[in-house]
Amino acid sequence: MPRVQRWYMEEYGKIKATFNPPPDCGTIQQNIEGFLKNMVSQKKADGVVFGLSGGIDSVTVAYLAAKVFGKKALALVMPDSTVSPSSETGDALKVIGDLGLDYKLIDIDVIHKIYSNYLEPDELALGNLRARIRANIIYYYANLKNYLVLGTSDKSEYLIGYFTKFGDGSADVLPIVELYKTQLREFAKFIGVPNNIITKRSSPNLWKGHYAEEEIGISYEKIDTILYCIEDWDNFTVEQFLDKVTGISKKDVEKIYQMYQNTRHKRILPERVGSKYGNF
Amino acid sequence: MPRVQRWYMEEYGKIKATFNPPPDCGTIQQNIEGFLKNMVSQKKADGVVFGLSGGIDSVTVAYLAAKVFGKKALALVMPDSTVSPSSETGDALKVIGDLGLDYKLIDIDVIHKIYSNYLEPDELALGNLRARIRANIIYYYANLKNYLVLGTSDKSEYLIGYFTKFGDGSADVLPIVELYKTQLREFAKFIGVPNNIITKRSSPNLWKGHYAEEEIGISYEKIDTILYCIEDWDNFTVEQFLDKVTGISKKDVEKIYQMYQNTRHKRILPERVGSKYGNF
Repeated sequence: MPRVQRWYMEEYGKIKATFNPPPDCGTIQQNIEGFLKNMVSQKKADGVVFGLSGGIDSVTVAYLAAKVFGKKALALVMPDSTVSPSSETGDALKVIGDLGLDYKLIDIDVIHKIYSNYLEPDELALGNLRARIRANIIYYYANLKNYLVLGTSDKSEYLIGYFTKFGDGSADVLPIVELYKTQLREFAKFIGVPNNIITKRSSPNLWKGHYAEEEIGISYEKIDTILYCIEDWDNFTVEQFLDKVTGISKKDVEKIYQMYQNTRHKRILPERVGSKYGNF
Repeated sequence: MPRVQRWYMEEYGKIKATFNPPPDCGTIQQNIEGFLKNMVSQKKADGVVFGLSGGIDSVTVAYLAAKVFGKKALALVMPDSTVSPSSETGDALKVIGDLGLDYKLIDIDVIHKIYSNYLEPDELALGNLRARIRANIIYYYANLKNYLVLGTSDKSEYLIGYFTKFGDGSADVLPIVELYKTQLREFAKFIGVPNNIITKRSSPNLWKGHYAEEEIGISYEKIDTILYCIEDWDNFTVEQFLDKVTGISKKDVEKIYQMYQNTRHKRILPERVGSKYGNF
């Protein structure tokens, strides 16, 4: 069992995954920074680029990237001014100022509107389109500057598929994908991410008033407990979970388990004939 | 060794990979069609969507999709009228008419121009952006209609990375990725793809006058011979290749081998800390 999983300490009922020795954020930081350095050197890239929303995930990536790459880390702030709260953009710009990062600010509103002239309206699809427009711009700069793209998914979002396929899911490297959201909050604090960013409500901002825990309907503390058990148990069953954990409803466990299973396609390569039917 | 690889008959020097019994395009067609049916049913999708350029790859996918899904196959024709030859769009529309496919025709020119208002000009990056805009639109319809996205990469393009990462590389399913370009030409003929589409020069149309074999500088017959050996030999070396094959220069072998190696990142999932540094 990977050590970072054991760090996840949850005290619902009989589940108490202890971390011994206690969470060593310093080691985690060293590992991620070493990994990033190694990736950029191995791929002969000249730096890194990432989308910075002002949320905890992208701000944590910004802190790590600034430390390792300095001015060779490019932050792209890409609000859609019709849906993104200006406070988020303000938070992102404040982080850029604090870290002295290289950055671009592009309002994707006009680009998004042009697409929608050609497409039948649909709120969900238009929301995902925002994430995909951002990915296009990030990869544009990656092409232009020979930079690697850092994805900003954390483990919780990744495992329940709470990201847009080929939108914010598009990346060359995933520096924080080994950290559950609740772990990330501890880690972010350790590396100096401002408290207001750690404590604010998580939001993908694909549309107005879009908050993760409200949309999913379950807190990250509960989500992470469930995911931890799904990942850690060889044969996860809802019954086994309910037998060992109190304080989380059957409905919530089933929902997260379903999200985990139904979004598997987002975490694999495209399916091929050979992968299901054997070779010709 | 998969049977379809043995089908690849190349007579450069001592390499003569024979296919015995002779190429059974019927079996290949059955396998791909069965695979597509199975994927759509397994993923509980309602149909399939794909980009149709008018080139051999996407037209072959159109023929397969039309046969399996009829009106539940949606072809998206997305020229950029500033760079795509109108003959290509004409070919795509002709195929749609012949097959009775559901389709949309969207000129991406205006969308592409709006992006470029925000971005420093760069021909290569602007070319890749075209492929990424197309992916956005394909996934928009996939969202809207609960359709699976069919990628149109063939094995040759896939292995040398001759596609745009998170552009035309974005797909749920890759129906023809087990077929080298030279094999695909045989297969396309078998399933009834018109001859003019099979014989015309292959072009990604990322910019004006953009032809695959000219850009790479090597014919697909040679590319496939080299790839066949790279894939088939446990420890491929250029020296070993040159010892066994005549008619292909050292320079060409090295170029394809480099393309194969340098584009590996396009054929894997994003890199993770755990994948290189072990778990924390």
